[in-house]
Amino acid sequence: MTNTNSNTLPSTPSPLWGGRFTEAISEVAHRFSSGIEYDSKLWREDIRGSIAHARMLGSQSIISKEEAAAIVAGLEVIASEVERDEFQFDDSMEDVHLAIEQRLTEKIGAAGGKLHTGRSRNDQIGTDERLYLKSAVPELAENISEVIGALLEKAEEYSDAIMPGYTHLQRAQPVLLSHHLLAYVEMLARDGERLDDLLRRVDRSPLGAAAFAGTSYPIDREMTARELGFGRVGRNSIDAVSDRDYLIELTSACSIIMMHLSRMAEELILWSTREFGFVTMSDKVTTGSSIMPQKRNPDMAELIRGKVGRVYGALIALLTMMKGLPLAYNRDMQEDKPPMFEALETTGDSLEMMAVVLRETTFNRERMEAAVRGGDLMATELADYLARKGLPFREAHHIAGQIVASAEARTMNLDAMPLQDYRAFSELFEADIFEYLDPWRSVREKKSIGSTNPEMVREAVRAAVGTHHAG
Amino acid sequence: MTNTNSNTLPSTPSPLWGGRFTEAISEVAHRFSSGIEYDSKLWREDIRGSIAHARMLGSQSIISKEEAAAIVAGLEVIASEVERDEFQFDDSMEDVHLAIEQRLTEKIGAAGGKLHTGRSRNDQIGTDERLYLKSAVPELAENISEVIGALLEKAEEYSDAIMPGYTHLQRAQPVLLSHHLLAYVEMLARDGERLDDLLRRVDRSPLGAAAFAGTSYPIDREMTARELGFGRVGRNSIDAVSDRDYLIELTSACSIIMMHLSRMAEELILWSTREFGFVTMSDKVTTGSSIMPQKRNPDMAELIRGKVGRVYGALIALLTMMKGLPLAYNRDMQEDKPPMFEALETTGDSLEMMAVVLRETTFNRERMEAAVRGGDLMATELADYLARKGLPFREAHHIAGQIVASAEARTMNLDAMPLQDYRAFSELFEADIFEYLDPWRSVREKKSIGSTNPEMVREAVRAAVGTHHAG
Amino acid sequence: MTNTNSNTLPSTPSPLWGGRFTEAISEVAHRFSSGIEYDSKLWREDIRGSIAHARMLGSQSIISKEEAAAIVAGLEVIASEVERDEFQFDDSMEDVHLAIEQRLTEKIGAAGGKLHTGRSRNDQIGTDERLYLKSAVPELAENISEVIGALLEKAEEYSDAIMPGYTHLQRAQPVLLSHHLLAYVEMLARDGERLDDLLRRVDRSPLGAAAFAGTSYPIDREMTARELGFGRVGRNSIDAVSDRDYLIELTSACSIIMMHLSRMAEELILWSTREFGFVTMSDKVTTGSSIMPQKRNPDMAELIRGKVGRVYGALIALLTMMKGLPLAYNRDMQEDKPPMFEALETTGDSLEMMAVVLRETTFNRERMEAAVRGGDLMATELADYLARKGLPFREAHHIAGQIVASAEARTMNLDAMPLQDYRAFSELFEADIFEYLDPWRSVREKKSIGSTNPEMVREAVRAAVGTHHAG
Amino acid sequence: MTNTNSNTLPSTPSPLWGGRFTEAISEVAHRFSSGIEYDSKLWREDIRGSIAHARMLGSQSIISKEEAAAIVAGLEVIASEVERDEFQFDDSMEDVHLAIEQRLTEKIGAAGGKLHTGRSRNDQIGTDERLYLKSAVPELAENISEVIGALLEKAEEYSDAIMPGYTHLQRAQPVLLSHHLLAYVEMLARDGERLDDLLRRVDRSPLGAAAFAGTSYPIDREMTARELGFGRVGRNSIDAVSDRDYLIELTSACSIIMMHLSRMAEELILWSTREFGFVTMSDKVTTGSSIMPQKRNPDMAELIRGKVGRVYGALIALLTMMKGLPLAYNRDMQEDKPPMFEALETTGDSLEMMAVVLRETTFNRERMEAAVRGGDLMATELADYLARKGLPFREAHHIAGQIVASAEARTMNLDAMPLQDYRAFSELFEADIFEYLDPWRSVREKKSIGSTNPEMVREAVRAAVGTHHAG
Repeated sequence: MTNTNSNTLPSTPSPLWGGRFTEAISEVAHRFSSGIEYDSKLWREDIRGSIAHARMLGSQSIISKEEAAAIVAGLEVIASEVERDEFQFDDSMEDVHLAIEQRLTEKIGAAGGKLHTGRSRNDQIGTDERLYLKSAVPELAENISEVIGALLEKAEEYSDAIMPGYTHLQRAQPVLLSHHLLAYVEMLARDGERLDDLLRRVDRSPLGAAAFAGTSYPIDREMTARELGFGRVGRNSIDAVSDRDYLIELTSACSIIMMHLSRMAEELILWSTREFGFVTMSDKVTTGSSIMPQKRNPDMAELIRGKVGRVYGALIALLTMMKGLPLAYNRDMQEDKPPMFEALETTGDSLEMMAVVLRETTFNRERMEAAVRGGDLMATELADYLARKGLPFREAHHIAGQIVASAEARTMNLDAMPLQDYRAFSELFEADIFEYLDPWRSVREKKSIGSTNPEMVREAVRAAVGTHHAG
Repeated sequence: MTNTNSNTLPSTPSPLWGGRFTEAISEVAHRFSSGIEYDSKLWREDIRGSIAHARMLGSQSIISKEEAAAIVAGLEVIASEVERDEFQFDDSMEDVHLAIEQRLTEKIGAAGGKLHTGRSRNDQIGTDERLYLKSAVPELAENISEVIGALLEKAEEYSDAIMPGYTHLQRAQPVLLSHHLLAYVEMLARDGERLDDLLRRVDRSPLGAAAFAGTSYPIDREMTARELGFGRVGRNSIDAVSDRDYLIELTSACSIIMMHLSRMAEELILWSTREFGFVTMSDKVTTGSSIMPQKRNPDMAELIRGKVGRVYGALIALLTMMKGLPLAYNRDMQEDKPPMFEALETTGDSLEMMAVVLRETTFNRERMEAAVRGGDLMATELADYLARKGLPFREAHHIAGQIVASAEARTMNLDAMPLQDYRAFSELFEADIFEYLDPWRSVREKKSIGSTNPEMVREAVRAAVGTHHAG
Repeated sequence: MTNTNSNTLPSTPSPLWGGRFTEAISEVAHRFSSGIEYDSKLWREDIRGSIAHARMLGSQSIISKEEAAAIVAGLEVIASEVERDEFQFDDSMEDVHLAIEQRLTEKIGAAGGKLHTGRSRNDQIGTDERLYLKSAVPELAENISEVIGALLEKAEEYSDAIMPGYTHLQRAQPVLLSHHLLAYVEMLARDGERLDDLLRRVDRSPLGAAAFAGTSYPIDREMTARELGFGRVGRNSIDAVSDRDYLIELTSACSIIMMHLSRMAEELILWSTREFGFVTMSDKVTTGSSIMPQKRNPDMAELIRGKVGRVYGALIALLTMMKGLPLAYNRDMQEDKPPMFEALETTGDSLEMMAVVLRETTFNRERMEAAVRGGDLMATELADYLARKGLPFREAHHIAGQIVASAEARTMNLDAMPLQDYRAFSELFEADIFEYLDPWRSVREKKSIGSTNPEMVREAVRAAVGTHHAG
Repeated sequence: MTNTNSNTLPSTPSPLWGGRFTEAISEVAHRFSSGIEYDSKLWREDIRGSIAHARMLGSQSIISKEEAAAIVAGLEVIASEVERDEFQFDDSMEDVHLAIEQRLTEKIGAAGGKLHTGRSRNDQIGTDERLYLKSAVPELAENISEVIGALLEKAEEYSDAIMPGYTHLQRAQPVLLSHHLLAYVEMLARDGERLDDLLRRVDRSPLGAAAFAGTSYPIDREMTARELGFGRVGRNSIDAVSDRDYLIELTSACSIIMMHLSRMAEELILWSTREFGFVTMSDKVTTGSSIMPQKRNPDMAELIRGKVGRVYGALIALLTMMKGLPLAYNRDMQEDKPPMFEALETTGDSLEMMAVVLRETTFNRERMEAAVRGGDLMATELADYLARKGLPFREAHHIAGQIVASAEARTMNLDAMPLQDYRAFSELFEADIFEYLDPWRSVREKKSIGSTNPEMVREAVRAAVGTHHAG
């Protein structure tokens, strides 16, 4: 269903492989097989790779210095043409590699045809993709870093905010908001580590593997790798053109990032309900309703959550594509580009959006603290109080449970229940029980490493800010 | 990373929900949330739905007849503008519904604003999607039918061709090529049934569910449903706007279609290897290599096989998106469109391509028959021969196995081994054994319904052709 | 890592195919390839299929009546042995078919070996699976029906309950709780339809397709199909043994069911938070915490939501397995059983659990109604009020938005704001505005089919109850 | 559908959280929520973690030294009981943690109850899983290493074997078999790297995060981490109990491993067809047919290929489960164990099987070399020959294509065509053309790093063997 200008379609077999063929590819087949819609996004990398290859061919005297120079100059002109929209990729072209090579030959004549010496589209596309990732993945890491930055800003701004921590979405124990935000910083830090790890496996140049068996031209793979900034040359030419692990690893890492964002989004959506009321997102990241004047919808958070499926889908697309493929290159592998770009763009955009959403979010300290004090969140302290006074914990827990049930029946907060009511459950209760019902005391009492103890949390924020700025 | 013209972005809150808002949505948020890139593909359906709605509003006197007429006329003008590219959707717009409504108001003034009475974008998008599927799914069925047609043509053309049937990709027993092709006809016929089934569930109009609770305007949902060709009105307004089952069912049906095509593609790829040599695909659907002059690559079949992943990915995207969403509409659901279009287009294109590939495929009767005669494919007949002469089958099977091993060791075909060698294994062998080694006899002897018996296969082809032309 | 009793492993080639083989399968291979852990769940269907096949062989005089009778009697004895745990399947066996056949031969001698005449394990396993689904899928439909029953009970019990309807998880407009519950009834009714649809495609007997080419024995496929309750015979023998569409369709239908349950579970979890407080689940379906005495965790709802992934995973497992498989049978297809059972059991158990959870849930009418009245949910009515008094809707919406903002700033419910404050925004407000702020009035005013209008909802419940009891 | 002994089900609320509850959990709910079937596989790790925790509690004087000693001794007794099947886990138990703790209390009385001081099941299960992976992942790496070993053995054994390299499954250029096998060594080496990378993220102790907020007991998290062999303590207590990234990373790495194995399996299946005939797998890893005496089916390779779906399914199960989960622990996360074990076992078993399959595979040097010489594989050399003699490459390629077409029409190998026929296409051909048609010359002429040049391949095998033995 791609729009195509059939006038420009060849009516004779491709001059590239003509000898054994007598007819041109059908129009349906041309449309079906054209990869230009996606792979033209790799034009910069394709030209960069070709320049490096041409220089090496010249340096190795496989082509003359003059030819090499003409090719490099021609490619640089093409790059600026594309940049200025003077040369455009369209559906009549088969792929980005041929489009650029044909343009080059138009410009510099027969020498253009020599560019392809000692390489093939199989190693060329692998080189393009890897070069692309070598800049796109660090950009993604930048986006992660922005979200971490926004989380840390909020953690500092709200270092004095306490909120209910939840398990099973039931209020469980008081925690600091900043402690909660730091949990996301940890997740995102791991995401960054995973990107670093996969970059090491991206950083291997396939250029020079040629079709898959290597080449008899005396090419210098180390030289092109170096020029293109690769740390290493891919060791086996068949693997070099058959490998797409790096794209699966990328979409897997993106899937985990999106999963993390979906959790953050879910919480922001919950917290911005009238029922929770913990946050207000600004007009800049919410929308209203043309019908219901009261609505302030957290659309951006919802969209982030909704987009996770597309990245999971990209991962499955690649895993499915590669299942059971014999070596070496198969045309199936052309289908790697839509999921690659989809995962990168969706994840990058979602991270960028999340950083803005966080910055545009105001936390409601009072509502959160009221939620901590309200209801029965402090029941654990009741049990601990009795346990400290010598009651076996199980018994103390049992009595605390009964007190909670009683308070609930009367829709009364625990700290609003008079001492005599407590004493009806156990004589061990004294006036100091109300100190124990203070959530701030609860967090201050935490002693374990990584806990919500305010000192520790402050220290953790400080450390994270330090790392963040250093990173 | 969508390109957007920020000049056209609003600097004040949307006039649609302005009262409670003081600031405009941020540019990042605008870009992130715009759905126009995908939902503009639904413009025809959106206008059709709006015309039906406007007529109903007029007929129910909710708006005046004149207003209704003005709206309908305005929408028809917009339709022809879009058709002629005089009105274009761009990234500065939020979605297709608003874009058309705003254009309408530009054209006919305030009356345009009344179009939205008694409906919301929530029921509107559901209506658009369902209308779209009501024509796109039958088109897909057409594509299926084309492939069935191509299979039946080949089944008729090669009614005299015999080939090795395979299990575990090992030659197993002789079958007719047409019998093999009919297996795919069965698969595709089931695919068609599944499309019919899901269309029944698509065929329910959500229009008039409004935001999700219904409306107090005296609208006539039956009337709009009828005008739009829906068989039925969706029964519950909350479900009507929350339901995306139909898209999951669609992508699931498309996934099975693509799985079937991937099997057919795999076989065509295998059969066009030099090793099998059963088929030759024409120049129109194969490509060569710029390096290797002998290559004739089955790229179209490979691409079909490679594209299966994208459709599986679309299915996972939708299933993930819907997981755990509370009722009713959530903005996450905007993300339903990329996988919907991706599945429809990829599947439609792949079917279309496959029909061409099949038509451009020549089967090599001689190679196939030689493969049947070659090697040890007829060994089952040896065992049957001995069994018929009274040997217990297990023993007969054992002797046949030994004969096969012996022939293999001498790289000799079974029908080339002299009688005396057979008799060395069992005295029961007589000269008539060579009749039994005739693969044509083997298929003719088959008696069970649905078997590869030539009479039955011919009848099955005839019946399928009849159904195909009737359908 | 399966536990296996290596003593019982064969040390010579299988007697089933011995002739060409000189060594037994390795222990690792035996363990790796044994399917008995899963396919033994099909023992009942395997025996049923074999009985039908034996009777047909006798009836067609392919074996003697006496042999047929002996086989049938032997199989019935084995069935009761398995039933009473006197015959047990273990890891030393290759699969359920061979295990039963070998047991039969132990019992009735050589006649047992004739059971396999005119069939193969390829058509046998397809028959077993389809027979299994012919009873398992209706059981699943029963489970769906139970959940529908529980929803309708609650819809009837709480026909007088009003609650906030949500979009974007923001309070939107008042709806009846029973209207909300009916949305799930619709979803589940579609799930039932899908099961019916797929059963039609399950209902085709593959028995008699033999290995894949049919058989030369004069078997009667119609007879065995009839005896086993199949509506139809599979038309093409190759397709009959290669088809696993029915399992993909099943896991797809199960995925949609689980997705629906995950939405219901999500809402129950939200509604049982202290913040929403709309429901209380009984002690029978919640758990507490050994640390926090106040906790009442909605574990069952969480587990239902958590299990959705396993069913999506089963779907992907099958789609992946079938991708690119050449015809006809390949051993890969043995891997169809774990996902089949996983999807059936997880979905069946989750439905069963959900019916119990719903029955053990008490809705808090007061909290829900307070939520409707609280805050700004009724703002749409403000706008409608002004619009009815002649203000253009957009302007009315704008003023309503400002009133909401003002009420929010003062944390005041709309119905608590004095008339004079309303009039400060517009002179059009009169004392009757407070009638309009009554949520019951809002739902009663709804007029469209399928809306939350109490009359219509009551009628819809009545109709659904009728269908439910009839069904 | 789990079998459960309902006699043992509690009829009163759990004593662990009794106070607020008056009724026991229902039987359906008990069955539905029991995790013991899967988490009992973690019993060793659970006991190890508890011993470390108890020692730390004693060392920190949170419990007495005597209590700590009693707990440790009791746990050691339980471990040996489980080892000797004297204590068995069954469905009446809720989970492995409670089962062991209750057994401990039976054994040592009230002191057993103190084991849970300062921890919760939330940090305990995370600790168990991570400990499990700390040994299971290196085992998987061992399995990978076995396959690498088998590949290298074959690469050494067949260092003199040449075969057609394929692209698009069409014969492309000659390569060494050992070069082809080394491509898989590269893939598996990357798999090993990924396991190493994820182990770094597994290596963080969550123990002491307690429910999620940390604890007020003066526990020493560094001490337990050290004792359990963790390199580091998880930094944030909320993240520590909410994180399941490590399982997603694991199943993703397993998915890539299985994808690699599926490619290898596909090739082995292809190569063992009668049509290719490149390999013979021994009786130990193939099966026959009870019907067709000639069959030698590559079932083990097929099953490996078939099992890839289950691992992809496990990955999707986990990604789905985690999508949109709010912090901290939710019961959904119990569902992490089936996919974890499924991925580990399936991948481990498949690697183990593949190593055996490779060792049991004989490569047919003659068939492979004949395939290289047969047909038109050497056509590239024709073009190169002409190009070296001064013809522009494109023209040379064209002529070579015509020669191929001509040879094909006469079903003649290129090296069988007489010189005069070559000269009919171009006068540039001389007698030395036949040297160029020697495939050994072709591989020897390759010069680029990583190519199929025999010297380089031999060196690469040597280097890989060195690494393998060192690793």
